[in-house]
Amino acid sequence: MATLREEALHMHRVKKGKIETKPKVPVRNADDLSLAYSPGVAEPCKAIFEDPQTVYDYTVKGNMVAVVSDGTAVLGLGNIGPEAAMPVMEGKAVLFKSFAGVDAFPICLNTTDVDEIVNTVKLMEPTFGGVNLEDIAAPRCFEIEERLKREMNIPVFHDDQHGTAIVTAAGLVNALKLSGKQMKDISVVINGAGAAGIAIMKLLKSLGCKSIILCDSKGAIFEGRTYGMNNLKHEIAQVTNSEKLEGKLSEVIQDSDVFIGVSVEGALTPEMVESMNEAPIIFAMANPVPEIMPDIAKKAGASVIGTGRSDFPNQVNNVLAFPGIFRGALDVNATHINEEMKVAAVEAIADLVAEKDLTADYVIPAPFDKRVAPAVAKAVAKTAMETGVARRKVDAEEVAEKTRQLTMIEDDA
Amino acid sequence: MATLREEALHMHRVKKGKIETKPKVPVRNADDLSLAYSPGVAEPCKAIFEDPQTVYDYTVKGNMVAVVSDGTAVLGLGNIGPEAAMPVMEGKAVLFKSFAGVDAFPICLNTTDVDEIVNTVKLMEPTFGGVNLEDIAAPRCFEIEERLKREMNIPVFHDDQHGTAIVTAAGLVNALKLSGKQMKDISVVINGAGAAGIAIMKLLKSLGCKSIILCDSKGAIFEGRTYGMNNLKHEIAQVTNSEKLEGKLSEVIQDSDVFIGVSVEGALTPEMVESMNEAPIIFAMANPVPEIMPDIAKKAGASVIGTGRSDFPNQVNNVLAFPGIFRGALDVNATHINEEMKVAAVEAIADLVAEKDLTADYVIPAPFDKRVAPAVAKAVAKTAMETGVARRKVDAEEVAEKTRQLTMIEDDA
Repeated sequence: MATLREEALHMHRVKKGKIETKPKVPVRNADDLSLAYSPGVAEPCKAIFEDPQTVYDYTVKGNMVAVVSDGTAVLGLGNIGPEAAMPVMEGKAVLFKSFAGVDAFPICLNTTDVDEIVNTVKLMEPTFGGVNLEDIAAPRCFEIEERLKREMNIPVFHDDQHGTAIVTAAGLVNALKLSGKQMKDISVVINGAGAAGIAIMKLLKSLGCKSIILCDSKGAIFEGRTYGMNNLKHEIAQVTNSEKLEGKLSEVIQDSDVFIGVSVEGALTPEMVESMNEAPIIFAMANPVPEIMPDIAKKAGASVIGTGRSDFPNQVNNVLAFPGIFRGALDVNATHINEEMKVAAVEAIADLVAEKDLTADYVIPAPFDKRVAPAVAKAVAKTAMETGVARRKVDAEEVAEKTRQLTMIEDDA
Repeated sequence: MATLREEALHMHRVKKGKIETKPKVPVRNADDLSLAYSPGVAEPCKAIFEDPQTVYDYTVKGNMVAVVSDGTAVLGLGNIGPEAAMPVMEGKAVLFKSFAGVDAFPICLNTTDVDEIVNTVKLMEPTFGGVNLEDIAAPRCFEIEERLKREMNIPVFHDDQHGTAIVTAAGLVNALKLSGKQMKDISVVINGAGAAGIAIMKLLKSLGCKSIILCDSKGAIFEGRTYGMNNLKHEIAQVTNSEKLEGKLSEVIQDSDVFIGVSVEGALTPEMVESMNEAPIIFAMANPVPEIMPDIAKKAGASVIGTGRSDFPNQVNNVLAFPGIFRGALDVNATHINEEMKVAAVEAIADLVAEKDLTADYVIPAPFDKRVAPAVAKAVAKTAMETGVARRKVDAEEVAEKTRQLTMIEDDA
């Protein structure tokens, strides 16, 4: 039998990649040509020239997302370069379309220079309705996202940060329902101070969480720490760890309620879990091997355990977030994906697990739950309109219905 | 009945643009996901990292052309900007796919700065197998193409220059068969010293034409002319008009054999045609109204007349060239589209009109002649291999057969 490796290589080679640019209108003869191209095409050109906003009516822009990467932080593979990143970016485009009918196109850039990346993406704004940044290493990814958000008029979203944060937060929201604890009362330790860790911290704060400590490989980050610091960590220190706790993960994790790992295999030991408050919640998302294996965490007292893997319960999979988020943002022609829209996505995902179904093994919907993208799209569109970043008013229920019609995933997947 | 204007606007609005990015592999369930995305996708990523050339095996790159424009010279509409250019670039993508199965994607850039355009396109090289420059104003288009050709390892082709030149030259080659004259003996006047005019001049020289005069609005360009000159026109003067003829079009056209117009409506009068050598050949390609109307040219003695219009015989339509040219170049993984490949395309197009069918009204195949793209692709692939710009050896006949299978145009179109 073919291994996954052989099968994946074979499939990619036979298909020569995973997407195609397909005509939505036929050009089989001269009549077709006169509408889709010269002379008919001059009419939408003139209409857009007269009223630039109609580019959203007459072209693909309003449904087209650029999946932009420099190939510096691809999957668990690291800095493999922009060519080698192409299969992932094409795959992302497939997921955008398959889950929510969003057209997406891979743009792999042959530079790691922040200015060059920012300028290139900005110059392509006429073609795209949104930008999904992907697999760009920290700390560069933060500056790139910040500048693009400020300087572009279309949504910019770094999925490795916010997608992961949104799905993790949804799982945590539901885990807290089981534990009876409130977000405002819990103490959280996040291990890993990279793109995902920082984004999770910020989103949990938006959700009302007050006590968060971030750890890097040197231990807790706190204001006044003199070793292994940089600008980013100084900023982290200012908004977390208000008690300025010092020490290794094994020390600061004591008496906390939640561990969130976006770090490395084996970073969390059973002893650390035992040192936490009763029935702690664990999200161990190191890939492919988690910070702690679920059975070991459970044995050490953990109540709810989530990982990044499909072979354990509660998989934190970004595909629960980004297709619906962009669907909703594009459908209202949003200028940004703001914090409120991310929080709305968290709640939409969490709410899909009905209270009666909620168990320790089911705090996050399955990746192929067909209800997710429509619910997220609806919540995001609604919140965009409420928070003033929507340039178009729509019926949010129609956004959900459209998403349901566009999804290609199976009923019983 | 709806006018073409209404119909074109309606079609673009209902479809919201003309292309989509469609998955070539399904992602309906977890099994699909594990092949197209994580964890299976890591395998082609690793393979490309180890051997960068395999990006052509495992991704869309080898079949993906960027259709790049800054929107400064769109159709007859002029400088309408990058958003308003989108319908044309999407239309071009539709034609690439419909005629020759080439995936193409519009990249409309929000800048007219040469350095910015060059840098942006270069940085996107990991995603694309070729670059089609489109509707970029002269003289900027020359420098952009030159620099990209020099600095990129994939074919770069400015269609407004070379596509027009190739199809015009093919028509001229066949018109000369009818007249019994030889390319080396004729004298040609080209009216219009922009992108297309210069490209036509260069290609005719490659085909052996020795006597060419270019005219701009001030008349013949010649070495030593002191008015209305620039660097480009100095270069033109050095390689054309060896007798340094001075004067208006009406003067220098006397006793010439061929008029080629890429200029403006009405630039050629019946008196000028009458002043040419017997039975002159006229290509009057101003759009939408030619330099001279075919019936008037005929009455004034012209033998063969071509225009840019579909409602007259001998339409010079770029769609006869670019789909097959890129099909052939991509299939051999060419680094460039060199002069020899352009000449091969000219001959392939011309040869499709069999000697027995050749008449004054049929020197150029019809735009929807299904034989054209396969023949051009085959000739271009073959010539690329012969001239050392192909990185892959293929059977040229198989390139033709593949193109035949990929075309979407009708049998009786």
